[in-house]
Amino acid sequence: MKCRVCGKTARIKLHSHHTAFCREHFLQFFYRRIERTIKKFRMFRRDELVLVAVSGGKDSLALWHALMELGYKVKGFFINLHIKPGSGESEEYVRRFAEKFGADLTVVDVKDYLGFSIPEAVKVVRKPACAVCGMVKRYIMNRHALQIGATAIATGHQLDDAAATLLGNILHWQEGHLGRFYPVLEEEDGFARKVKPLTFTGEYETLAYAHFVGIEYYPKKCRFAHGATSQVYKHILNELEMEMPGTKLWFVEGFFRTAREKFRAEEPAAPREKCVFCGYPTTRREMIDGEEKPVCSFCALKRRLQKHEGE
Amino acid sequence: MKCRVCGKTARIKLHSHHTAFCREHFLQFFYRRIERTIKKFRMFRRDELVLVAVSGGKDSLALWHALMELGYKVKGFFINLHIKPGSGESEEYVRRFAEKFGADLTVVDVKDYLGFSIPEAVKVVRKPACAVCGMVKRYIMNRHALQIGATAIATGHQLDDAAATLLGNILHWQEGHLGRFYPVLEEEDGFARKVKPLTFTGEYETLAYAHFVGIEYYPKKCRFAHGATSQVYKHILNELEMEMPGTKLWFVEGFFRTAREKFRAEEPAAPREKCVFCGYPTTRREMIDGEEKPVCSFCALKRRLQKHEGE
Repeated sequence: MKCRVCGKTARIKLHSHHTAFCREHFLQFFYRRIERTIKKFRMFRRDELVLVAVSGGKDSLALWHALMELGYKVKGFFINLHIKPGSGESEEYVRRFAEKFGADLTVVDVKDYLGFSIPEAVKVVRKPACAVCGMVKRYIMNRHALQIGATAIATGHQLDDAAATLLGNILHWQEGHLGRFYPVLEEEDGFARKVKPLTFTGEYETLAYAHFVGIEYYPKKCRFAHGATSQVYKHILNELEMEMPGTKLWFVEGFFRTAREKFRAEEPAAPREKCVFCGYPTTRREMIDGEEKPVCSFCALKRRLQKHEGE
Repeated sequence: MKCRVCGKTARIKLHSHHTAFCREHFLQFFYRRIERTIKKFRMFRRDELVLVAVSGGKDSLALWHALMELGYKVKGFFINLHIKPGSGESEEYVRRFAEKFGADLTVVDVKDYLGFSIPEAVKVVRKPACAVCGMVKRYIMNRHALQIGATAIATGHQLDDAAATLLGNILHWQEGHLGRFYPVLEEEDGFARKVKPLTFTGEYETLAYAHFVGIEYYPKKCRFAHGATSQVYKHILNELEMEMPGTKLWFVEGFFRTAREKFRAEEPAAPREKCVFCGYPTTRREMIDGEEKPVCSFCALKRRLQKHEGE
């Protein structure tokens, strides 16, 4: 097996692309795909500050590394969620990454914002753990990005994540989710846009990149993700990919090209007000001292947890 | 396990519906689903003549049987395609079914229309066998329905077929196919509408029905269908169904309810002319004696086969 570019012995075979590369030309291929995605979807420019949300896993660390290599102005941002096992180990990996590659890192503690850990919150609210955790992380990241003047928040969601999310939304025909599903989400109220530069880069390629450039990462899934339906979707998409290499990529690219526009809502989003506790924009309202007032989901959760603790 | 309706010992468990039935109430459930589908999509009335396209397999024979039980005016129609093995055996099963259940059956031979068998045609044209065969069968059925005054042609496509077709069209985002995918297709030019009364009835239920009412059927797939991608889609949809019972049904119903309308073409279909050889409506044109004339796909195939034989 030879490298497609230089003809030297290939180090990696990419079935989905019907090709193979040596180390050097794989890296070139990997960087080009990301660069093209950033440009095509106007994610961010080289003079903007980008916050990379890192978990300690291979995808977000690979993204952080690649964006630095590509010369973007990036800062890593890690939130210790106090999920055991996982959070402590992940923080270690993230800190070691920053040291090894000379990367700029901020670590925060979910308790400094919420007053409680994610497992404590999940126990009280009885909502799906991933929904609670996602909301809390978005809130903290948004606030932090605003504070440091970052205009984009980049996450490590790759093609396999995108294909699984898309498949789940399609099997249930969730029109709202389908309309909002995109590699870049412009935000209102001065918040940083959310971008996913790995949308067209497979998990396998991302893993290979991490190994080629010497990234050590926390290899386990979050314990709350076990048995998640997204795992079922990923499994069957892998089966399809084996039978028909390239399926995930056509599926996701084709959706953006031909179908997404059809699912976009015609009505403008509901107007947002400022949360009475933190000023965060929200469409949510709640009775406070006998009066209905805007309260964001984060403050609502925080108040509920405080109340529960007091009981 | 008890029957949901009468509490007697259940004879069949339907995971996808989270329920179980005795023989009697399963049949009731089965008939009601079909009847509801026919009514909801205005497929045909009891005073219309319906041609049931039968292959000798479980799905089309179960449909034929159920439509007779429901009191519809149906005629079975079988085309011997001369695919070996399969066509001869299938014809035997269809003839035995008609005799056993006192059903009205017409058997025709593809060679009487086309002059050649399907394997002979496939060998010459080098198109996918299922595309050639489907076109030929549609042509013969349309002509026959017109001749006997049938206003609808019913096929045994069931939920598993529908879900697999839909998934394939979605993975490739085939907008045209998605817009036309529906349990009933109204036809122009006086042709019978095409209807699929089993669209919301799973393959498992259809198989159970065939067994409960004593239908003997040809159990093998057509040899041209081996390795078809639809088999891959069915396999993975079965995996999803195991993990999340009800998936196929939501997926297909949800598509008709929320998404299909978005894919329907805004432009009217291309105008159709009459084939110069048989009068069949067509959008196809071909050079005949130095002049471009309308020639339908069937006549084009027939002429090509005749020419090939003459060479």
